Amino acid sequence: MSLIDLFIEAGNLKRLPRTGWLLRGVSNPESIADHSYRVALITLFLADELKAKGVEINVERALKIALLHDLVEARVTDIPLTAQYYLDKDKAEKKAAMELFIKTSNPREYFRLWREYEEGLSLEGRLVKFADKLEMLIQALEYERAGFANLEEFWKAMDSLRESEFYEHFREIVEGLFEMREKVK
Amino acid sequence: MSLIDLFIEAGNLKRLPRTGWLLRGVSNPESIADHSYRVALITLFLADELKAKGVEINVERALKIALLHDLVEARVTDIPLTAQYYLDKDKAEKKAAMELFIKTSNPREYFRLWREYEEGLSLEGRLVKFADKLEMLIQALEYERAGFANLEEFWKAMDSLRESEFYEHFREIVEGLFEMREKVK
Amino acid sequence: MSLIDLFIEAGNLKRLPRTGWLLRGVSNPESIADHSYRVALITLFLADELKAKGVEINVERALKIALLHDLVEARVTDIPLTAQYYLDKDKAEKKAAMELFIKTSNPREYFRLWREYEEGLSLEGRLVKFADKLEMLIQALEYERAGFANLEEFWKAMDSLRESEFYEHFREIVEGLFEMREKVK
Amino acid sequence: MSLIDLFIEAGNLKRLPRTGWLLRGVSNPESIADHSYRVALITLFLADELKAKGVEINVERALKIALLHDLVEARVTDIPLTAQYYLDKDKAEKKAAMELFIKTSNPREYFRLWREYEEGLSLEGRLVKFADKLEMLIQALEYERAGFANLEEFWKAMDSLRESEFYEHFREIVEGLFEMREKVK
Amino acid sequence: MSLIDLFIEAGNLKRLPRTGWLLRGVSNPESIADHSYRVALITLFLADELKAKGVEINVERALKIALLHDLVEARVTDIPLTAQYYLDKDKAEKKAAMELFIKTSNPREYFRLWREYEEGLSLEGRLVKFADKLEMLIQALEYERAGFANLEEFWKAMDSLRESEFYEHFREIVEGLFEMREKVK
Amino acid sequence: MSLIDLFIEAGNLKRLPRTGWLLRGVSNPESIADHSYRVALITLFLADELKAKGVEINVERALKIALLHDLVEARVTDIPLTAQYYLDKDKAEKKAAMELFIKTSNPREYFRLWREYEEGLSLEGRLVKFADKLEMLIQALEYERAGFANLEEFWKAMDSLRESEFYEHFREIVEGLFEMREKVK
Repeated sequence: MSLIDLFIEAGNLKRLPRTGWLLRGVSNPESIADHSYRVALITLFLADELKAKGVEINVERALKIALLHDLVEARVTDIPLTAQYYLDKDKAEKKAAMELFIKTSNPREYFRLWREYEEGLSLEGRLVKFADKLEMLIQALEYERAGFANLEEFWKAMDSLRESEFYEHFREIVEGLFEMREKVK
Repeated sequence: MSLIDLFIEAGNLKRLPRTGWLLRGVSNPESIADHSYRVALITLFLADELKAKGVEINVERALKIALLHDLVEARVTDIPLTAQYYLDKDKAEKKAAMELFIKTSNPREYFRLWREYEEGLSLEGRLVKFADKLEMLIQALEYERAGFANLEEFWKAMDSLRESEFYEHFREIVEGLFEMREKVK
Repeated sequence: MSLIDLFIEAGNLKRLPRTGWLLRGVSNPESIADHSYRVALITLFLADELKAKGVEINVERALKIALLHDLVEARVTDIPLTAQYYLDKDKAEKKAAMELFIKTSNPREYFRLWREYEEGLSLEGRLVKFADKLEMLIQALEYERAGFANLEEFWKAMDSLRESEFYEHFREIVEGLFEMREKVK
Repeated sequence: MSLIDLFIEAGNLKRLPRTGWLLRGVSNPESIADHSYRVALITLFLADELKAKGVEINVERALKIALLHDLVEARVTDIPLTAQYYLDKDKAEKKAAMELFIKTSNPREYFRLWREYEEGLSLEGRLVKFADKLEMLIQALEYERAGFANLEEFWKAMDSLRESEFYEHFREIVEGLFEMREKVK
Repeated sequence: MSLIDLFIEAGNLKRLPRTGWLLRGVSNPESIADHSYRVALITLFLADELKAKGVEINVERALKIALLHDLVEARVTDIPLTAQYYLDKDKAEKKAAMELFIKTSNPREYFRLWREYEEGLSLEGRLVKFADKLEMLIQALEYERAGFANLEEFWKAMDSLRESEFYEHFREIVEGLFEMREKVK
Repeated sequence: MSLIDLFIEAGNLKRLPRTGWLLRGVSNPESIADHSYRVALITLFLADELKAKGVEINVERALKIALLHDLVEARVTDIPLTAQYYLDKDKAEKKAAMELFIKTSNPREYFRLWREYEEGLSLEGRLVKFADKLEMLIQALEYERAGFANLEEFWKAMDSLRESEFYEHFREIVEGLFEMREKVK
């Protein structure tokens, strides 16, 4: 029975820290699973709101992508930016995704979903990418509010949020976050 | 804009430990968000498998329930069993759920989903409860494998898995877990 | 023999974090036992000083109250303010106090002492409450000095110190603390 | 005002780990304050029980000793056995005790109390020593139950409990603990 | 001035956990710097002993290799085995080594030393590899003694120690370690 | 075989925190081994640079001193300044050094190296002292950058760097560090 193995492997995401925070001196930073949980939660509310606004979006699809998008890190770990310069993270994650999902009864579908995120192939995939950045910045805000510093670099991601196709729909959220951050600085 | 506040509040789930492990001496146990993430992931695979077997199940609904089921703990925290004896956790979570979801554009739907889990009102709600127990036992197995002890009590939850309406479908997973545990003892 | 069980149960206070700090992003905050220890120590010095000034105070009584005042949290855990809004903490702690002290040979006396704190029934009980607030603020100061932020809310407790019947006696301590804090901001 | 400084200094006891556990690989062991709290709590119950049995004991005195007995470690830290072989811990603590208590209005009394513990000069001082050992063994039991090993050495302290003048009174507690430990091994 | 940047970068090694332990559930495992320190210390004693036995070995060279061998992980991080299957760690570390050492006044020498370890080009490089494995197993022993389990896999490294050209010289150490481990199991 | 015991004992340096940071509220500070590693690494680069400049320095000797200089803390632990006022740290470390090195085949040489550091008897010993201070200040900078405060006191060590015989050679490093710190304040 291979699903149980998959679930156990996913447990690595609880143990592995998000290395970006770690390298900047945040003590005991969040785990990959911590991050993934909130990405999925954000996706839920954003997707529902888009749908309510008449955007044609498949919420189930979006949620699945959110839950699967970092699963390969259970094998590849959270390679920080400094390391990505030396390692071909994308290729590694692609291979890991293929080998991970083969354990399931729907390898094709799950791998397809993973690629939608990775390569921005669908609206749902791009929404999760938007949620992923948003989540990271909310976490940055929380660490800064708690007193941690040295996190300026992360805020460059504001640009990608503002340039996103979803910005118009979630302008209040994005700018609300920005204003909260201005107060912390 | 209230969604950003909701997302920030959900950040508590990353900081709050699962108290059951803490009280039994597991040092630095998982967070509530860690747990919730894997519950949602398990729900995804189980729901898809049920569907493939011809069971009529709404996967989107199941995923939403999984992501929302512990959200109220961002306010109520993870009340351990010893404390539940003294505190009316259910009532508290119900009230918190109502007040939390009011921030969203779909309070009724989200509250309804939350109740489906809490009160087992739908197949999807009961599946998440199954996934919730399963996740906890996988975590117990991982802690025991790592050397932590004193977790026998948690394994009583095996009974509820075996008595579940989903047992027949996921017998291999449940018994596979049980056998893995037998090897650790 | 039930005292050994009581002592073991009290061990929970070492493992349980003070959730107020945790929720504001203090990593690895103090335990309930950490807090209780300093409350009792402060009580010792304040009670002795009051006595030296001619105030009629029972120091033994005050010390017992200080040591017992958070013992019920070994069962009920440290319910943070956000959760107290949903949970009847007072009722829970009262019931837990009764059931905990029943294990001892003096249930009535210990429960009475606990109530003196909880309900402010005696000078000694109120002194421990004063020490409890003072301790919390000293800890807030220490966290702020160490770089943690986001703790303004705690400082509202300054008011209750200043309005206390003990303020006159310990004005130097309270205002000394306040001045130290002004320097950190 | 010097008491506030004393209280702040006592905060070190929350931050300093008990080094005995640390050196044996317990991750994130208890703080000195964690330990001191339970020593004082145990002292409270034992002293009351002795009194109830007709033993002439000054409970207030015992509680004060319990709260003060490790206070000097805020300056000297918890010197583990391996280090005590090289450092004159007793002399250091004596000097630190004198200098610490000078900040208070009762230096003589507090220093006297501290010596009663250190040198076993009074029944109350010896009771706290008994409680100190008992607390350590209860903690050892809890760590062993949680899965930590390598703590055999600590159990030698059982002998001193059994040879103590208080053994007769608390035989049930001591032997109850011993039996609990036998079950863990 | 570039050396200060190099020293600051090396600080990452203190913050980055050794992921092998982390993935097997060791809570708060050692840092890369923790490991590197003891590798260098072991190298010192082994190199001196070899020299005393008449083996022609350059101790300075060996020590430099030991201190430099994991420095690139400040950029590449500690890629665990599961991830190495997907990532070309060797290539990445080689590139990182070249770019790191370019900051120094002796890029060629340091890169050469790094390669001696990586590719086993010199006696000194191979000695550090021996010390690296030995250190890991001593750490495994310490974790197992402390109660952590699930570390069997690491002990496969015993084979490489026994097959090493240094085994004859350090048979007592290697077999001594093995016997200690047998007692823990 | 005693070397294995020495290596195991050195493992204490990984578990023991640097108490100076701990007492100022840095959560989860570096270990002694973390510190020692970077001291040795800094020594390597500084010694090589001195040699390149024509200074007569024995690099091997310097590296050995760097690796051995804090080894005795495996027995004596990291006695913070407040405690050194009460404890004769120098005497203790001297005795521990003698007893530790006796386990090796070269007790005289290692003890001599240790004394060169401790008493500044050689250029190499003094260079390691310079590296030791430099390392501490780089760590202070990193903690301050990460948001920790309350570390002013450590920066007094700048004076000893500036007054050192090595200052002229490494002025750029020292002043570079100073400027970086000015930007953080």
